[in-house]
Amino acid sequence: LELKQLIYLDNAATTRPIINVDGFYREYAQNSWYNPSAMYKQAVEVERKLNDARKTLALPISAIPEYTLFTSGGTESANAAILRGFHLNGGKKQHFIVSAYEHAAVYASFQALQNMGHSVSYLSPEQDGHISEESLCSLVNEDTALVSIMHVNNETGSVNDIERLSAAVKRINKNTLFHSDGVQGYLRCPFHFQASSADYYTVSAHKVHGLKGTGAVFFKKNTPLKSLIYGGSQERGLRAGTENTFGILFFGEAVKEYTKDLEQKLEHIKTLNLSLKQKLLRLDGAYLLSPSENCAPHILNIAFEGIRAEVLLHLLEQKDIAVSTGAACSSKKKREDRIHKHLGFGTNILEGALRFSFSFENTLDEVDTVSNEVAYALTNFRKYVRR
Amino acid sequence: LELKQLIYLDNAATTRPIINVDGFYREYAQNSWYNPSAMYKQAVEVERKLNDARKTLALPISAIPEYTLFTSGGTESANAAILRGFHLNGGKKQHFIVSAYEHAAVYASFQALQNMGHSVSYLSPEQDGHISEESLCSLVNEDTALVSIMHVNNETGSVNDIERLSAAVKRINKNTLFHSDGVQGYLRCPFHFQASSADYYTVSAHKVHGLKGTGAVFFKKNTPLKSLIYGGSQERGLRAGTENTFGILFFGEAVKEYTKDLEQKLEHIKTLNLSLKQKLLRLDGAYLLSPSENCAPHILNIAFEGIRAEVLLHLLEQKDIAVSTGAACSSKKKREDRIHKHLGFGTNILEGALRFSFSFENTLDEVDTVSNEVAYALTNFRKYVRR
Repeated sequence: LELKQLIYLDNAATTRPIINVDGFYREYAQNSWYNPSAMYKQAVEVERKLNDARKTLALPISAIPEYTLFTSGGTESANAAILRGFHLNGGKKQHFIVSAYEHAAVYASFQALQNMGHSVSYLSPEQDGHISEESLCSLVNEDTALVSIMHVNNETGSVNDIERLSAAVKRINKNTLFHSDGVQGYLRCPFHFQASSADYYTVSAHKVHGLKGTGAVFFKKNTPLKSLIYGGSQERGLRAGTENTFGILFFGEAVKEYTKDLEQKLEHIKTLNLSLKQKLLRLDGAYLLSPSENCAPHILNIAFEGIRAEVLLHLLEQKDIAVSTGAACSSKKKREDRIHKHLGFGTNILEGALRFSFSFENTLDEVDTVSNEVAYALTNFRKYVRR
Repeated sequence: LELKQLIYLDNAATTRPIINVDGFYREYAQNSWYNPSAMYKQAVEVERKLNDARKTLALPISAIPEYTLFTSGGTESANAAILRGFHLNGGKKQHFIVSAYEHAAVYASFQALQNMGHSVSYLSPEQDGHISEESLCSLVNEDTALVSIMHVNNETGSVNDIERLSAAVKRINKNTLFHSDGVQGYLRCPFHFQASSADYYTVSAHKVHGLKGTGAVFFKKNTPLKSLIYGGSQERGLRAGTENTFGILFFGEAVKEYTKDLEQKLEHIKTLNLSLKQKLLRLDGAYLLSPSENCAPHILNIAFEGIRAEVLLHLLEQKDIAVSTGAACSSKKKREDRIHKHLGFGTNILEGALRFSFSFENTLDEVDTVSNEVAYALTNFRKYVRR
């Protein structure tokens, strides 16, 4: 099956692996495939390389390499931070707070806590897409074990001020732990983990041009963290199972590559986003669902009245353009409207929402093509044009 | 740091990735990196390739591809089969049976069940290293929820007859589920999963020349399986999180490569094992810890009286030979003697135990070198020679 190359504007779903693999894999298959838990020096050298990758990952957010845990991805990372041990803590019921528009990995973890008998408060974002410090603080009490607020919403791109929110929570209850899902924020929005009051920040490799199947939890010294997976004493007892050495070393290389000229990369992404936004909002019946301020550079969510997003997606696909109607992980089940319901638009508009998401690999030419093809599709296939 | 190539006889710890990556990675980075949950045809094509890998993995053990779940490795696979949902089943206490010489991934899962208040029977192997059908059956009762018996012991290579043991358990209680850790057995010892009475068979990619960070659970239709990881509905709801597509496709390729001329490969491995065994057992004070019958082709465990295994391991390392004193995953903590204590040897002998483990990539020349170097090390460094 021959498939054409796409104009790929679905970089919030996954990104293309960017490492020049010829050298990387040859080195791996030659020197770095040993079991890092083995005792000969070649194996010890692999462990050293894993620790180098920890340093590489921690540096851009000023986290501490020693408190960086590798996992099988963003979902396991979020689970580890949120659920660690709570399923064993059968007796004592605790209180949790989570924003209502989290990714399924976080949301489902809290539903699991609720099923275990814990109490969970779901906090809706404001209409502008951000979590209000005041509303959050009003929910924190002396039994609140953990708060989870995502750094960047994966559907609209709205950015939460994690430094401010985590500090506010700690002022009310210093024992309340704070987790932030950084899967869409890491590298794309500035964040200083160590200086913040957040206890956990969880990330995924394949959203920043690494490989699927690798993630990490950044955590603070003395912050409780407990593996959901039982077995050997790898990762200093925090996660059993032989390390995914190839994915971890690849993650390190991807972060090195991404952070090379990071400012320029992000400026380029912003330029692409702004350009497509301006072009698309000139079209009849187009509504901006992404926040107009404090939006992540790589996400643009726009709804088109009078056409279903799935129809538009497939029309664009015929032109070899990949976009998304929302998070890929929820694309195959009935769409939950919990993510968008705060925005104040009716279903007739929300059902026409498309997410365009950018990488530094995209070009302004691609943006031009996409905006032209959206315009063409709307002219020819929407049910009606708003006048 | 320049490191020499090793004579690598630690293939039970991990194996060298064998795929010719030039073509494989190029194809991946070109066509197969899309998120398999996305809706455009390039992404659907990735999902098709994942399902092809399921078929490739299932074929050699006659499992059903649709009932093949991908995980982050052997440890998560064992956890998923053993723990699925039991931590949520707070009220009802159940009975479990596990052999006492399981890998830490399995053993620790049962300790977790025990910590949750369930009852666990630990069954010691016979002195020849095998689990007795009679002893196993005497422990099964009407409350027995699950039995776990490993296919091949990772330290001695003893092979259990999973077909016979699982059938015997079901004859006593047809509702008792049967799990077998197939990490050391898969591809190396014949097994027909679908025809057996086992409900779960768990495997790891990196033990058969795939990559670390990928594993699978083969299970039966209508057998309960529940993810330990909450989130999206990937893997038909059985495991949340974007699939490790690179690792999974690599696993498929590795299995294709391994099963090419499988009989010849296994014959070669047996020849290597037998040759080294004969040479080493000619040495003074050498004891065979592997069973003399029903032993996996790739594992040879021999103890040398009068020298500590760690000393011998490092002497061999200086000659660029990699072997192991036991499972890599337990090498860094105090060695548990639960694995060997059934063998009927004293600590003075057991503390000199080395595991040699083979791949089809090894040669008879390597075996000659290793046996000569062991002989040299014993002659020069052991505390005394038995007369």
